[in-house]
Amino acid sequence: MRVAILAHEKFPDRAKTALGVLRYADYEAVAVLDRDNPGRRVSEFVPDVQDAPIVEGMADLEGDDVDALLIGISPIGGEFDDSWRGDVRTALERGCDVISGLHYFLSEDEEFASLADEYGCELWDVRKPRDDLTVGEGIAGEVDAEVILTVGTDCSAGKMTTTMQLVRDAREAGYDAAAIPTGQTGIMIEGWGNPIDRVVSDFTAGAVEEMIVAKGDEHDFLVVEGQGSIVHPAYSAVTCGLLHGSMPDKLVLCHRAGQEAIHGYESFPLPPIETYVDLHEDLSAPVSEAAVVAGALNTADLDGDEAARRALDDYAETLGTPATDVVRFGTDAVLEALFE
Amino acid sequence: MRVAILAHEKFPDRAKTALGVLRYADYEAVAVLDRDNPGRRVSEFVPDVQDAPIVEGMADLEGDDVDALLIGISPIGGEFDDSWRGDVRTALERGCDVISGLHYFLSEDEEFASLADEYGCELWDVRKPRDDLTVGEGIAGEVDAEVILTVGTDCSAGKMTTTMQLVRDAREAGYDAAAIPTGQTGIMIEGWGNPIDRVVSDFTAGAVEEMIVAKGDEHDFLVVEGQGSIVHPAYSAVTCGLLHGSMPDKLVLCHRAGQEAIHGYESFPLPPIETYVDLHEDLSAPVSEAAVVAGALNTADLDGDEAARRALDDYAETLGTPATDVVRFGTDAVLEALFE
Repeated sequence: MRVAILAHEKFPDRAKTALGVLRYADYEAVAVLDRDNPGRRVSEFVPDVQDAPIVEGMADLEGDDVDALLIGISPIGGEFDDSWRGDVRTALERGCDVISGLHYFLSEDEEFASLADEYGCELWDVRKPRDDLTVGEGIAGEVDAEVILTVGTDCSAGKMTTTMQLVRDAREAGYDAAAIPTGQTGIMIEGWGNPIDRVVSDFTAGAVEEMIVAKGDEHDFLVVEGQGSIVHPAYSAVTCGLLHGSMPDKLVLCHRAGQEAIHGYESFPLPPIETYVDLHEDLSAPVSEAAVVAGALNTADLDGDEAARRALDDYAETLGTPATDVVRFGTDAVLEALFE
Repeated sequence: MRVAILAHEKFPDRAKTALGVLRYADYEAVAVLDRDNPGRRVSEFVPDVQDAPIVEGMADLEGDDVDALLIGISPIGGEFDDSWRGDVRTALERGCDVISGLHYFLSEDEEFASLADEYGCELWDVRKPRDDLTVGEGIAGEVDAEVILTVGTDCSAGKMTTTMQLVRDAREAGYDAAAIPTGQTGIMIEGWGNPIDRVVSDFTAGAVEEMIVAKGDEHDFLVVEGQGSIVHPAYSAVTCGLLHGSMPDKLVLCHRAGQEAIHGYESFPLPPIETYVDLHEDLSAPVSEAAVVAGALNTADLDGDEAARRALDDYAETLGTPATDVVRFGTDAVLEALFE
């Protein structure tokens, strides 16, 4: 499928869905829409993902070059920015499907629903949960697979990237591993999954448990895409439901090097890394004995491999486990701790 | 308002909404519907709440004696039991409103919606959240009021009862205290509130924060009705969202005396009380420094005041704080720790 990826004014640093899709999905990226950088290319900003031209809007693309427009950014709150309306409209009028992970459902937008109907396109709201989700039974621990959960010191710490990279590399190394997608980007990449942060809070644990039960006897390892942070002022409910619902055996703690406060909630400093380790292990223990056995440090903000390596060594020493930057240095350093 | 309270086969021990309404709401209870005990009275089972006759069904009541039928039980999962359909139908046909706290929305049931329309009645789905809830901003800590949150070792440990009794007694003692209702029973009693466990998990913290911000400068103390348990295999997401969204100053730990495992999830033993204290305080600290300053022990299962007193002394000693059974012994023992 050939997709155009909308990432206006946020590419690449605040466009994690766009980047995740460019890095891990099987879609062919025809273009990234970013009105701040028309005429440039993805590779000028991010060298190690699928390259594509950057254009100002859907109007700059040939209609029959694109099968779907994919919304590649998600503001806090998941709202639809009305400045994107023209691009979505143009896409639908050309017969393109639209894939969105916003809390705002495009399929419930009158104009879009009517255009989709008129031009025979599909509006896929990735974050719209199935109607039949319900409460957990506390049975995720009964599956044969070992369950690995990525957790983080904040949102956008690298949980989705770590999950996808670990699964890809583990498979290449001969392990039978699969991803459990829980967020809009993971679901877009894998083509299935429950959008945990959009599920009724009573059903959060149940929604991840259901996926683990469905896949848990088909694979040796499941890597669950984590969400939020266990001490996030707004999103910790999602994180806690994932922790208890997935009943993990092993945890990977993801952190952005140098980050000192919760993004967007700057009056809340991040507690020390050791506190995150203790909180996750202590909170998990009554439901499932889980240990942090590896670290994933996002060093994208650091200048050069040497600085990154130093930060990584510090992080591994603090954790007392192997650690890596899965994008900069690959996953070799942590595969054994996780998959042996 | 005169209400009939449906509690078939669950009254009184597994009918916490019915009991909460009988104990704390301003409704006049015309009858409790319980097909297991027709002809008996509430006072034969529970002496210290509003008394009412127990009848087999709505058909046993005179139509013009009742203004509303209130669903007073909520099975795991919050589903509608079709054996109640006749009572709801009869109520609507007589022009009674129906108040329900189930996850299953009566207003979306075709038969009920059509009957309500035909007979001019209201279907109040207490657990249906408002459409405009959104993510938290991390600002509940900025209100003038001191925020007290009830937490528990399990569901049905007494958080709602403790909340309502504390607010009632604090007011009588001259403190300016108000309840923040977060569950179906609290909302039915207070007539407003956000049903936290039914809110999208991303908005859980935001939904309690919004209520605290709305009331926080009008009162000296807010007592937030807690939900679930921080180590519940299915419901911990709700609890965690409440903890971080309400940014409490003080916590009251509610426990059912003698309980050893999570109800309905018996393979999960309750961790020690000290573990609950540490988990809540450690998990809260990065967002809001909160301490467990009082305990509420539900001794309803113990035989006699002497055994209850012994259990209570043990509980207080373990906690290192004052503790009481708010129903059996009142709240005098904990008021000072909470409201001074």
